[in-house]
Amino acid sequence: MPGEFEPQEKIYMLWPQRPDNWRNGAKPAQKAFAEVAKAIRRFEPVTVLASPEQFSNCRNTLPPEITVLEMTSNDAWVRDCGPTFLVNDKGSLRACDWKFNAWGGLTDGLYFPWDQDDLVARKICELEHADSYRTEDFVLEGGSIHVDGEGTVMTTEMCLLSAGRNPSMTKKQIGKKLKNYLNCDKVLWIPNGIDKKETNGHVDDIACFIRPGEAACIYTENKKHPFYAVSQEVYRTLSGMTDAKGRKLKVHKICCTKHPVKMKKQFCIDQVEGSKPRKKGELCIASYLNFLIVNGGVIVPQYDDENDKKALKQIQKLFPDRRAVGVHTKEIVYGGGNIHCITQQVPKVRTTAK
Amino acid sequence: MPGEFEPQEKIYMLWPQRPDNWRNGAKPAQKAFAEVAKAIRRFEPVTVLASPEQFSNCRNTLPPEITVLEMTSNDAWVRDCGPTFLVNDKGSLRACDWKFNAWGGLTDGLYFPWDQDDLVARKICELEHADSYRTEDFVLEGGSIHVDGEGTVMTTEMCLLSAGRNPSMTKKQIGKKLKNYLNCDKVLWIPNGIDKKETNGHVDDIACFIRPGEAACIYTENKKHPFYAVSQEVYRTLSGMTDAKGRKLKVHKICCTKHPVKMKKQFCIDQVEGSKPRKKGELCIASYLNFLIVNGGVIVPQYDDENDKKALKQIQKLFPDRRAVGVHTKEIVYGGGNIHCITQQVPKVRTTAK
Repeated sequence: MPGEFEPQEKIYMLWPQRPDNWRNGAKPAQKAFAEVAKAIRRFEPVTVLASPEQFSNCRNTLPPEITVLEMTSNDAWVRDCGPTFLVNDKGSLRACDWKFNAWGGLTDGLYFPWDQDDLVARKICELEHADSYRTEDFVLEGGSIHVDGEGTVMTTEMCLLSAGRNPSMTKKQIGKKLKNYLNCDKVLWIPNGIDKKETNGHVDDIACFIRPGEAACIYTENKKHPFYAVSQEVYRTLSGMTDAKGRKLKVHKICCTKHPVKMKKQFCIDQVEGSKPRKKGELCIASYLNFLIVNGGVIVPQYDDENDKKALKQIQKLFPDRRAVGVHTKEIVYGGGNIHCITQQVPKVRTTAK
Repeated sequence: MPGEFEPQEKIYMLWPQRPDNWRNGAKPAQKAFAEVAKAIRRFEPVTVLASPEQFSNCRNTLPPEITVLEMTSNDAWVRDCGPTFLVNDKGSLRACDWKFNAWGGLTDGLYFPWDQDDLVARKICELEHADSYRTEDFVLEGGSIHVDGEGTVMTTEMCLLSAGRNPSMTKKQIGKKLKNYLNCDKVLWIPNGIDKKETNGHVDDIACFIRPGEAACIYTENKKHPFYAVSQEVYRTLSGMTDAKGRKLKVHKICCTKHPVKMKKQFCIDQVEGSKPRKKGELCIASYLNFLIVNGGVIVPQYDDENDKKALKQIQKLFPDRRAVGVHTKEIVYGGGNIHCITQQVPKVRTTAK
């Protein structure tokens, strides 16, 4: 699996729709998704996948240089239900089609059913003419892992050892699966994430590789900040780790929002049994770390917070050869994720099958 | 618009599903569609488009070398609701996205609604990254025209002058539309087709170009054959015509089935208001002429009729550089069309946009 910072072919996104997760019939979220898509399109091709009911609206909302295709899904998190693309020794595109169960299945998952989400990876592989490995015996979401492209994968124990995913497997067995499927030699285990109740602590909200040998993570010294404990832990953990090549990791700090982002008073979300309700005053997982690296750019969440500019500057400094572009994504965070969660990169390859 | 006999990139098909048109839940038809797809795949790439509900079944039914993508439609006639591909002077792919109204709209169309069919052309153009011309003021189906790629288009008056399509336009105005959109100089008007009640006489059941200057048409001398009158008329009409280049057309005869194909006793089709019923003993439009030309091959309908081999031989003789392959398609004809109706070719182009 190539690192996200390696050359990419295009970005896939799903189009948000379900009114039991996105307020006001997903209209504000659709606007934010469109802004993310347009920001990415400045750097590389984007394909947005919309349901049959939303196809026309999505096509008419987005500019013509963004491709819109039909694809049914249960929600809009292509990072998690989409394929994880790999490149084999011959330079051909391959993919892991992870078994998906909506972040914990019937144990602590976020909705039921998830059958259409679980077909998204296969359908994207068909679009890319990429052969895929289906992991019928192993549940994983793309947002729970990051790789450096040189043999190291980072993840969290909170997520991968959760009761709703692969409860019959030991930590060692799970690590082995990761190494086998991603062709990695070493797993960096971070204890906790910041959204235990949603994704069970996906790593892509708290840390990532910015290049081989270097990582970034969320960091705050404000003891009252809800992410304080985890941010201290992840910084300390990663700083003490070496990667698969034996390099001691250089870890960069990315600030948190000054004020925690919370659910607003009026939410107008459908009340549906089996779907996670969104309550007034609930903490949102507003992390600047959930950015997306693209060819020549980094797309960074902004929240109308005092630290928006600081975060953008910090991230810009980490990527001297890319342009950091901020997009207001509060409406996406209200739905439970952010820019990295709603995107999936296809790496550039030397050869493609027809 | 290139002739069908010019080099192709791939073939699109839709996957049959609706139980009010296809007997036994479309299972026999799906088998026949799969055989057609596999026959084409011997010569060039095939993409089959299936609804969200049928995606997994379609994917699992077809071999991996056939691409399966999600696409919603109202039925499975991509020749008629799909795009008509063009190549512009720069060698780029373009398409006509004809307004579609299910072969006659509320006047004498075959089902309601047809909104998803009418989006198929646009969606295929997105897949092909092809710009399209939407004809909001002009209703047409791809099966009602054939071109020679050198300025001539053939069609039928029965269809194009029908009351359900463009009743406010004169024959001259309709001819002008065809010439403009297809970049043709001459329209060859054939009076009648053989399925007045279904497509109002699509030309692709009775005649086609096999190369510039040469056409083929159905022909029988058996006065009792239901296609006798039309077959005589189309042969006579075409034989007296010259094409856009001033060449007198050379017209080849293709036999009809020895025995008319009729609906069987047991049909098990859902009874749905607004959809055309299929009655016991009803005549099927079983024409050998509804074949598809592909790179190096011709895919020819077969009906378990005494004349199957004769038709295949006649068609093989017309295409000395291609291999004529017969596929049993009675189950497709029960649904109202045949191989040409369920396929749409993408011509080879020099350049493609990303």
